[in-house]
Amino acid sequence: MAYYVGIDVGGTNIKAGVVDDNSMQIISEASIPTGATRPQEIVLQDIIKLTRDVTERAGLKISEISAVGMGSPGLVDVNNGIVIFNANLNWRNFPIVALTREALKIPAHIENDADAAAFGEVVAGSARGASSAIIITLGTGVGVGIVANQKIWAGSEFGHMTIQRGGRLCTCGKRGCLEAYASATGLINITTDAIKNNPESLLSEIARNNGSVNGQTAFDAADDGDPVAKQVIDEYISYLACGLVNLIDGLHPEVISLGGGIAKQGEKLLAPLREKIALEVFGEPGKKVNKTKIVSCTLGYKAGVIGAAMAAK
Amino acid sequence: MAYYVGIDVGGTNIKAGVVDDNSMQIISEASIPTGATRPQEIVLQDIIKLTRDVTERAGLKISEISAVGMGSPGLVDVNNGIVIFNANLNWRNFPIVALTREALKIPAHIENDADAAAFGEVVAGSARGASSAIIITLGTGVGVGIVANQKIWAGSEFGHMTIQRGGRLCTCGKRGCLEAYASATGLINITTDAIKNNPESLLSEIARNNGSVNGQTAFDAADDGDPVAKQVIDEYISYLACGLVNLIDGLHPEVISLGGGIAKQGEKLLAPLREKIALEVFGEPGKKVNKTKIVSCTLGYKAGVIGAAMAAK
Repeated sequence: MAYYVGIDVGGTNIKAGVVDDNSMQIISEASIPTGATRPQEIVLQDIIKLTRDVTERAGLKISEISAVGMGSPGLVDVNNGIVIFNANLNWRNFPIVALTREALKIPAHIENDADAAAFGEVVAGSARGASSAIIITLGTGVGVGIVANQKIWAGSEFGHMTIQRGGRLCTCGKRGCLEAYASATGLINITTDAIKNNPESLLSEIARNNGSVNGQTAFDAADDGDPVAKQVIDEYISYLACGLVNLIDGLHPEVISLGGGIAKQGEKLLAPLREKIALEVFGEPGKKVNKTKIVSCTLGYKAGVIGAAMAAK
Repeated sequence: MAYYVGIDVGGTNIKAGVVDDNSMQIISEASIPTGATRPQEIVLQDIIKLTRDVTERAGLKISEISAVGMGSPGLVDVNNGIVIFNANLNWRNFPIVALTREALKIPAHIENDADAAAFGEVVAGSARGASSAIIITLGTGVGVGIVANQKIWAGSEFGHMTIQRGGRLCTCGKRGCLEAYASATGLINITTDAIKNNPESLLSEIARNNGSVNGQTAFDAADDGDPVAKQVIDEYISYLACGLVNLIDGLHPEVISLGGGIAKQGEKLLAPLREKIALEVFGEPGKKVNKTKIVSCTLGYKAGVIGAAMAAK
C-alpha cells in the first residue's frame, strides 16, 4: 500500500487529496479558491501548501507520499511536465512538475485535468471496465478525456472542436467551440441572453432575486415551469448533444460519462440529451444504431483527484 | 505468398484489384461505374463479376484467392459483414459478406471504405510507420479513417461531424457536416453558388465552356488568376481546415494524409491548408504547437483496394 497526493487545478477551485492506492479512496482532502487572475508562481505556492496540508491531515509526512499527481486544464506536455498553455488560468510554458519536485522533494507528474478525471472514472468510477470511454467535464470549460484500452489518449482538446463556425467567441480565441456553448460559462451566457430578451420571465425574476446568474439558474426556473428557462435548457442541451454526436459518430465509445457542475442535474440533463443524441447520430432515420451509454460520472470532483494521483503512480 | 482481391465500392466507381500480400502490389485491376441509383443486389452482381474478371486477368482461379475484402462508404458492421446504412448508394442492412461468400465460395470481409483506405496508407503508403494516423478521403463524401498503433479504429464517421450547426444539408440528413463542405460535392456546391453570384467571372466562363462544374473547375480558374475562383478555393480550404483542426486538437495524430479526387491538387491544396491549420489549432496565438504532419496519400485509389485486401487477410 502506498499514498499519493492528487491535485485538481480547476478554473475556480484547487482540490487536493491523499489517495490510498489499495482502496482507491481519498483519505484526506482540502480545497481552496484558485484565484485564477494571479501569477502562476503564486498559484503554485498554494498548491504546495495544499499538498502539505492534506498530507498532515492524513497523519502522514511528505516523505511518506510516493508522488504528487496534478491535473491542469489546457495544453499539457506530460513527458516534460510542463503546462504549455492554459486559457482559463492564463498559464504558459509553466514547468510545474520541476518546481513541485523542487519544493516537495518527491516525484511529481502532470496530466491534462480532463485526462486525469477520465482516468479516475475509468479506474474507479462510472466507466469502470469499459473498453473505451470519453469523460466530459462540464465546468468552467468543457474538458474531454479519452481512455481507450485502459490508457489515456493524452491531451484531447475536443472541448474546442468547432461546432458553429463564426459562432460565440471562446476563451481560446476561436469562435464556435463546443466549450463556448456547453460549459457552465456557455449555459450562463445563454441564460443571460434569454434574461435580456425576456425581462418579464420567471427566469429573470429568479436571477434578480439571486443577484446573479449561474449554471443552476435556468434549471431552477424550468423546475418552476418557466417556458423561457425550458427554452434555455433545450438550447443548451442541443449544443451539448451536437458535440457528443460528433464524438459518438467519430469514435463510438462504449461509455460517455458526464461530470462537472452542470452534470449534477442528473436525469434532468441526461434524459433529454439521450433523446436528442438518438435523433442525430449517423444512420438512417428511425433505424439508427447508437451503442454508446450516456451516464453521469459517479466520483464527482474526486475523479480528478483520484485520477491525477493514480496517473502519477 | 497469397493473393487477395480488394474491392473499393465508391459512390461513382467500383475498383477491384488482386493484391499479392508479399509485395503489397496490385497485380491486376479493373473498374466499373457504380450506378449508385440501382438496387443493392444488382450492384453486388457487378462486384461479383468484377472479382471474377480481375482474378482471371491475374491468371488465377477464384479458388486461388485467399479472400475478398471490400470497402463500402457508410455505417458498416464489420463483425457481421453487413452494410447497415450507406447514404451515397442508398444501401441498408445489406448482408454483403454472406452474399459474396455464397456467390464466390471464398472468405469475404467488409470494412468501411475510409477505414480500408486508411489501413492501406498505413501498411503500404504515406503514413507507413506512423504511431497514429488519420486518412481523409475527399471524394463524393468525406471519408475519415483512423489508425492507432497499426490498428483500424473501425467505423469513424467524423466526415459527418457538425462544424456549422444549421448549415448546408448533408446527404446523411443532418445540416452542417464537414462532408457537406469539404467533399468534392461540397466544393462543387460552393463553386456553383459562386458562379450564380458572379456570372461574368472567368470561373463562370470556364464552367460554361466545360458544360459542367466539377471539383477541378475552381482550381483551373484560380490557376488563370480568377479572384472569384480563388475565393471559392479559400472558402473550401477554410472548411476543410476547420474539420482537420477539430481532429488535430482532439486526437493529435502523427500524420494526416489527404486522398481522393480533390487531394490530387497536391501542394495547391496542402500549402494554404497547413497555413490555416497553423493559425487555428488550440494554443496561444504565435506559439501554437502542431506536431501533426499534413501530407498527400501516396497510393491514390490503390489504398482502398490494397487496404480492403489486407484487412481481409
